[in-house]
Amino acid sequence: MALRRIALHYDCISPYSWIGFEVMMRHSRMWNDPTVRIELKPTFLGGIMKGSGNKPPGVVAGKMVYMGRDLQRLNDFTDMELNMLSDPFTTLFKKGSIKAMRAITAMDMTNPEVVERVSIEVWKQIWIHDRDITDEAILMDAFTSAGLTKNKAKEFLEMAGAKEVKNKLKENTEEALDAGCFGAPSFIVRQDGEDDKMFFGQDRIELLCHQLELPYHGAAKEGKIF
Amino acid sequence: MALRRIALHYDCISPYSWIGFEVMMRHSRMWNDPTVRIELKPTFLGGIMKGSGNKPPGVVAGKMVYMGRDLQRLNDFTDMELNMLSDPFTTLFKKGSIKAMRAITAMDMTNPEVVERVSIEVWKQIWIHDRDITDEAILMDAFTSAGLTKNKAKEFLEMAGAKEVKNKLKENTEEALDAGCFGAPSFIVRQDGEDDKMFFGQDRIELLCHQLELPYHGAAKEGKIF
Repeated sequence: MALRRIALHYDCISPYSWIGFEVMMRHSRMWNDPTVRIELKPTFLGGIMKGSGNKPPGVVAGKMVYMGRDLQRLNDFTDMELNMLSDPFTTLFKKGSIKAMRAITAMDMTNPEVVERVSIEVWKQIWIHDRDITDEAILMDAFTSAGLTKNKAKEFLEMAGAKEVKNKLKENTEEALDAGCFGAPSFIVRQDGEDDKMFFGQDRIELLCHQLELPYHGAAKEGKIF
Repeated sequence: MALRRIALHYDCISPYSWIGFEVMMRHSRMWNDPTVRIELKPTFLGGIMKGSGNKPPGVVAGKMVYMGRDLQRLNDFTDMELNMLSDPFTTLFKKGSIKAMRAITAMDMTNPEVVERVSIEVWKQIWIHDRDITDEAILMDAFTSAGLTKNKAKEFLEMAGAKEVKNKLKENTEEALDAGCFGAPSFIVRQDGEDDKMFFGQDRIELLCHQLELPYHGAAKEGKIF
């Protein structure tokens, strides 16, 4: 069968990106199918929102309340442990994730094998420990928790300021916008000779499986390895 | 086991309400569990949006484009046949569904056994045939397609103007807002001695099943009867 590539666009500022990322990676392990390749695409969600004219859900009070319950239910369902932030406005809208996502992009350019593990550790810092990922010491904690040496972690933080790294993150963000994305996580399915197909949200993995004629495993807990 | 009641708040103007309604009713039939009771709650989505301060997705251009693809994928997955509207702005925002939802509320007050079938026929008029449900002749078509006599159908249309019917629709809408709803479909799970639990969206039926410890059947095609 022809190769199906799934570009997984995510930002570590987004809790639903984490859930979608985790559940997608678990599915990929359970499928263990060489005709499916997940391509991790660190993306800048702020750029997606701006480029598409979308607004984050937090602007409606009732949605923010619901989101807390929804995350708890998803934790229970998927065996994750996300918590609500003590100050979501500051964390999500004032501080943001650009330095973290640039450093992860630098890893993607030179050491792609560390991107999954590092992304998870950055998510843990915000969405489990409610810590400030604009603080370099906290990013260092995340990178070393993922197994990087201190020297290597520091090197990636420095690379985050380089022009080619900034451009690569912009490029991933543009790629998402070009495919019609307006939020994250977004999954773009590519196959030679077919139109690209974009799926938005962790709740559309079931439809993505249906499209690819691959089994949907719900929370896919058997595929959990971290 | 204690009775679990699931209030299913929906509006026939909303295509995702239809998908959620259909998939929920299929699950209910497949469960065939006397400890679970679905309570259909015709609701006015315009009132939910106003009361919660939410905005419909159609205000972001990219979301509207995506919605067309998403509906086609859901059709394929669930064996439904919704189509995009020729003039969504007029149908959804200018014309709306209040007369239809009032007539359905009148049925709910006197002949609740017809509500499911009639709601489906009203959805078909808009979301399959792209017809104008503010036109009484088209509503009559929907009601008689659901098996009502012409006389009975006409009676319900007349009842739509009655004060107690208008108040009952407002009451269902208030009930949804009080439970924290900000859109449709919404599912409120009630059980004696436990807090009410609201689930938003057709994509949260899986979490609802997990909460109730009932099997999730995806599109639940075996439960399809209409």
